[in-house]
Amino acid sequence: MAEKVFFGKGIRQIKKEDPQLYDSIENLDKNIWNANILDYRTQKLIAIAISATNHESSSFLKQVSKAKKELDISRDEMMDVLKVVLLTSGMIPFIHALEVVNKLYD
Amino acid sequence: MAEKVFFGKGIRQIKKEDPQLYDSIENLDKNIWNANILDYRTQKLIAIAISATNHESSSFLKQVSKAKKELDISRDEMMDVLKVVLLTSGMIPFIHALEVVNKLYD
Amino acid sequence: MAEKVFFGKGIRQIKKEDPQLYDSIENLDKNIWNANILDYRTQKLIAIAISATNHESSSFLKQVSKAKKELDISRDEMMDVLKVVLLTSGMIPFIHALEVVNKLYD
Amino acid sequence: MAEKVFFGKGIRQIKKEDPQLYDSIENLDKNIWNANILDYRTQKLIAIAISATNHESSSFLKQVSKAKKELDISRDEMMDVLKVVLLTSGMIPFIHALEVVNKLYD
Amino acid sequence: MAEKVFFGKGIRQIKKEDPQLYDSIENLDKNIWNANILDYRTQKLIAIAISATNHESSSFLKQVSKAKKELDISRDEMMDVLKVVLLTSGMIPFIHALEVVNKLYD
Amino acid sequence: MAEKVFFGKGIRQIKKEDPQLYDSIENLDKNIWNANILDYRTQKLIAIAISATNHESSSFLKQVSKAKKELDISRDEMMDVLKVVLLTSGMIPFIHALEVVNKLYD
Repeated sequence: MAEKVFFGKGIRQIKKEDPQLYDSIENLDKNIWNANILDYRTQKLIAIAISATNHESSSFLKQVSKAKKELDISRDEMMDVLKVVLLTSGMIPFIHALEVVNKLYD
Repeated sequence: MAEKVFFGKGIRQIKKEDPQLYDSIENLDKNIWNANILDYRTQKLIAIAISATNHESSSFLKQVSKAKKELDISRDEMMDVLKVVLLTSGMIPFIHALEVVNKLYD
Repeated sequence: MAEKVFFGKGIRQIKKEDPQLYDSIENLDKNIWNANILDYRTQKLIAIAISATNHESSSFLKQVSKAKKELDISRDEMMDVLKVVLLTSGMIPFIHALEVVNKLYD
Repeated sequence: MAEKVFFGKGIRQIKKEDPQLYDSIENLDKNIWNANILDYRTQKLIAIAISATNHESSSFLKQVSKAKKELDISRDEMMDVLKVVLLTSGMIPFIHALEVVNKLYD
Repeated sequence: MAEKVFFGKGIRQIKKEDPQLYDSIENLDKNIWNANILDYRTQKLIAIAISATNHESSSFLKQVSKAKKELDISRDEMMDVLKVVLLTSGMIPFIHALEVVNKLYD
Repeated sequence: MAEKVFFGKGIRQIKKEDPQLYDSIENLDKNIWNANILDYRTQKLIAIAISATNHESSSFLKQVSKAKKELDISRDEMMDVLKVVLLTSGMIPFIHALEVVNKLYD
């Protein structure tokens, strides 16, 4: 399913080893993206922005890559997110996020 | 102007002491919110989400308070933002942000 | 129940407004503390250490306060946790956590 | 000695260049792990949890690798630590830590 | 002594309870400020900048207050530090630090 | 110009795509390093210290590398900065920064 942003290989191993934990993560995930007002695209952009300010670069790369492919988010739209990162959180996360975005939208 | 999210008393003192720095902050601020694709409301929700994961609580409170007053953002809409905070960043920032939101939307 | 570390007033409001989200949080919480090897006390000390390095002070205070009351964790035991905070994360979070612990164990 | 978690090549260069600084780091290190109540294993798990939420991945990898070798910490025990990371700090650090743990326990 | 930036009441309690830990903290502290090239004033400004980006506001307030009193650091000098905070780390820590500085230099 | 610490390839692409945003970043940058009291060298050391505690390693490496080349900052001077990182922020960022510095000053 499209909304499983964080569900890669690592999580699949949990499915075998600890099915109850897996189910509870899957269930939480489902309820997060099941928003009342915001559409899924906006929630994804918010997750991307949080990732950009989080200094965990593999998570940011994966999320931007998925968002580009599944939601067809354009470079301009991504740059509108990064601008907010720049103002709130400065050049350190902005430059890093910019490099990832430049690579993925080359 | 509505978009000057971060412009409180502190910044006004800079206007007197260091007008060139003030102008450059104001100019950056203008170019941040002047988005290509995203509307101002979406960019504000992104800034609020970043603030919520940032552990700087006075900034979060001010931003949510402004967003509620100026953009009429509802509690449900704010909760859709906080859900993404919960999934990406866990219970520590979520519970803290929830307390601020509960107080402001009482 | 003892393990609901993060379940205060804020969460109770979610129970009414969004029972599905509430259930998924409660379910995740249950599966987190349902450990295979570690006992509940050790997991709680880990949560407290993470909170101490997180700069979100109200969460740290609540967790230490609960741990003291429910698990009878002594000041010495808490200091053994704070020592690891000092070595890994330095004086800024250590001094702050120390002040909270000193107040609660006065 | 087993407890010198952070003592790699970098620190050895300090020993030559600045022996007084080196001694004070070594002395602090000794007093950190010399706990009153907690055993060394628990303190190490706490250090690992702090590292996992710290977004500095080389430190996390080194610590998990050492803990596995020196203390024979099992994958299940490590997962009990990561569960607390997930609840407190969310999917971004959890998924990243999970990938490191999966690789080291393959 | 002037350089004991982080030595408040909390630390004094450690002196009684755990004199070995206290000595190792004091010794590390001494070796930190015993710089080869930089003067003490520059190192203090660096510590203040790190505190400002750390979202732990009581530590920042204490350090700025001490630096003002002991080293006679002027508001202009402090603003030169905060400018670097703004560029590297954005408006969230800058505005917060600015409020503290404005209050202390009123 | 020497002071454009953060101006790499990524930023140059913004110059073409969004010249107004580029100008506002360049203008802010100019006003940041245009200090009243501190010299440029001190401000750069402050930026490096913030980067070291920020867990975004590519930014730290770039800044130390530039500072070494452009300002002829010695290993000893860099170590005086890292000592403050160690005291305030602990072994996790210190060891990581030390590895980068050791590599660049080999």
